[in-house]
Amino acid sequence: MKPVKVGLLGLGTVGTGVVRIVEGNQQDLNSQVGSPIVIEKIAVRSTDKVRSVEIDAAKLTIDPWEVIRDPEIDVIVEVMGGIDQTKEYILEALERGKHVVTANKDLMALHGSELLAKAQEKQCDVFYEASVAGGIPIIRTLIEGFSSDRIVKIMGIVNGTTNYILTKMSQEGASYEDVLKEAQDLGYAESDPTSDVEGLDAARKMAILGTLGFRTNVELDDVTVQGISSVTKEDITYARKLGYEMKLLGIATSSNEHITISVQPTMIKQNHPLASVNGVFNAVYVHGEAVGETMFYGAGAGEMPTATSIVADLVAVVKNLKLGVNGLKAIVPYKTKKLQSTDQVFYKNFILLHVDDKAGVLAQITQVFAEYDVSLASVVQQPNEHNPDAEIVIITHRASKANFDKVLQHFEQLDVIQRIKSVYRVEDI
Amino acid sequence: MKPVKVGLLGLGTVGTGVVRIVEGNQQDLNSQVGSPIVIEKIAVRSTDKVRSVEIDAAKLTIDPWEVIRDPEIDVIVEVMGGIDQTKEYILEALERGKHVVTANKDLMALHGSELLAKAQEKQCDVFYEASVAGGIPIIRTLIEGFSSDRIVKIMGIVNGTTNYILTKMSQEGASYEDVLKEAQDLGYAESDPTSDVEGLDAARKMAILGTLGFRTNVELDDVTVQGISSVTKEDITYARKLGYEMKLLGIATSSNEHITISVQPTMIKQNHPLASVNGVFNAVYVHGEAVGETMFYGAGAGEMPTATSIVADLVAVVKNLKLGVNGLKAIVPYKTKKLQSTDQVFYKNFILLHVDDKAGVLAQITQVFAEYDVSLASVVQQPNEHNPDAEIVIITHRASKANFDKVLQHFEQLDVIQRIKSVYRVEDI
Repeated sequence: MKPVKVGLLGLGTVGTGVVRIVEGNQQDLNSQVGSPIVIEKIAVRSTDKVRSVEIDAAKLTIDPWEVIRDPEIDVIVEVMGGIDQTKEYILEALERGKHVVTANKDLMALHGSELLAKAQEKQCDVFYEASVAGGIPIIRTLIEGFSSDRIVKIMGIVNGTTNYILTKMSQEGASYEDVLKEAQDLGYAESDPTSDVEGLDAARKMAILGTLGFRTNVELDDVTVQGISSVTKEDITYARKLGYEMKLLGIATSSNEHITISVQPTMIKQNHPLASVNGVFNAVYVHGEAVGETMFYGAGAGEMPTATSIVADLVAVVKNLKLGVNGLKAIVPYKTKKLQSTDQVFYKNFILLHVDDKAGVLAQITQVFAEYDVSLASVVQQPNEHNPDAEIVIITHRASKANFDKVLQHFEQLDVIQRIKSVYRVEDI
Repeated sequence: MKPVKVGLLGLGTVGTGVVRIVEGNQQDLNSQVGSPIVIEKIAVRSTDKVRSVEIDAAKLTIDPWEVIRDPEIDVIVEVMGGIDQTKEYILEALERGKHVVTANKDLMALHGSELLAKAQEKQCDVFYEASVAGGIPIIRTLIEGFSSDRIVKIMGIVNGTTNYILTKMSQEGASYEDVLKEAQDLGYAESDPTSDVEGLDAARKMAILGTLGFRTNVELDDVTVQGISSVTKEDITYARKLGYEMKLLGIATSSNEHITISVQPTMIKQNHPLASVNGVFNAVYVHGEAVGETMFYGAGAGEMPTATSIVADLVAVVKNLKLGVNGLKAIVPYKTKKLQSTDQVFYKNFILLHVDDKAGVLAQITQVFAEYDVSLASVVQQPNEHNPDAEIVIITHRASKANFDKVLQHFEQLDVIQRIKSVYRVEDI
């Protein structure tokens, strides 16, 4: 078979990894797909930059359209990032019958259904394994490995930056600000870390996982999001004392065909497999009705792990090319989306209150929980070292989010509560 | 599309699970593949048995040939087990152009390449995701998820029975015999547990994983095997004291195109992700040159997890049927197998010796290690509580298996050594 020609959009960290794998593993790839894979053209920001891989200068262009419009090119690999402009590139590539492999979670979370519809219309593949959890083949697993099962819960540590920060805070008792600074120095966090630390990056990935796991079109707006920027080292100390680790978890659940998806700092039992996923590693825990508990662990980012997923997608495109079945295997989400209302979303909560240190306070507070039908698993009141208030640490039993939110609203009005210091979701199973 | 008709060979635990999923998830499966999947005929040992799923008696037969020769049937799902006779059934099914899904690790480890060759000749699919690690889609992961990468190491806890036994021994300080008995009572171990506890079951699975991971035909004879029946609670106490857990690990490595595959009780660092895989759970750790460390965790056996994998394979067959590409996507191992010689296989070792409690013994022993170029990481000599001998506990640095074996041979001749009590592989990374 004649060589398959690839156009690369972007030659940053991940793009460089793609070049490295395609060239370094050429023989292996050829043995699997039966034809050479050639990187034909690369769109870059600057053609002068010194690169860590050897590239024929004639392949470089600063104009992505030149790559997309090249009739010789069969597959576009998009690793440049960005949303609106990049979407135009990809739509045009599909329009021209080119297949697309992308690592772009932002694009897929926001415009995935539109791109996949266009791909289907044009009988092209759009693969995006690298967009979630880097080197972990979780997208394949949800589409193919669990095609037979009904997924009831997905929990993911899908953002390496925040997991690095929380791990360091937990293991070293360091403050959020100090660890963020260190992560930025090490290149694990961006100079503007908002998208990571506020949970937006994780939310985009969870929208993708939810769409695949629940076979319905989850949109970014369906994901409720809370980041880690207000997590303190005291919170983590409390968590550990109670037998939990603090993790930024994406949690997606489905019951009675109704789904709910969120990203929030969560206290998870120390013996849960997700609790020991540390540093920049990612993991996705999938609970299926039939398969039970499973977990998939690996590097969530980085040049080579991400490139592994991209080139695996490329191999899949080329195998399909050989069989003439591109674009014919896409599973379009076939379920009507029904979001669970907050009175049907149940979980445990941790709450830390600063209260007046006087008689009757605890009674008032527990009365509020009772009023909204939230029962308590444990209550500890103790003097606060640093000021005249007392601290109350409460863990609730499973309660509806609606009722628990009413408790918090009520607390805002309660004079004896100085401050609702922290509130976290708790996962015991 | 007209219904796809399935013939089931076997209706034990796993077969029952297959019926449950195909019938219970009929609508979901139909949405994915675009046609109903119907279980048309089932070969059973007895048609009179009371079953936990409702089955139309007219579908049952005690003659597998009746299922295989039925021209209406498109796919054979083999969950009856057995080797020689079952191989004949499957070859005949392929001969007749039927696709095959099997959970039979014994068959695939022993005759996989013959069956896959026949399948290719007849343009049929043979899928066997359920044959290794039950519900964990590890076969897909190795074939597709890591198609772009070079796997350098696979470590697997792929036998639930032995992992249950070792976990119990470790967590409760119980003896091997007591836990085995308990496992038998609970149905986690067979009345004749040999295949599990002597590592044969794990060896078969490792042969399959090695074939896929290293893209070369690994045969069962290539796997060196040691079981857990001589592991004592004292060994496990030592392991934990030194910061390790004892696990029956399948370990397959590839370096410079040479491979080595073994199954043996191994002391693995407590912070390794495999160390906390407990009970009947399975996990496969895969280290790829590009992707780095990954791990895949889930139920290794059981009715529904195993059935999940089988029906996922069935979905894959039906999708291929729809596209007319069955049998065209098989990857035939394309690498010449080169086994690593034992002087090129390096790892750390734990060794526990009972020795005469007198001066100069330690010097004699360490001299032997030096003679064969095996350097030592730690040596502890202590009196033995139960008899007049002393105990010496040694952990070596990484040494070649050839040299370490010479040390052990030499020890057999050494008068001051009463007994080589235990020897285990040690995995630090």
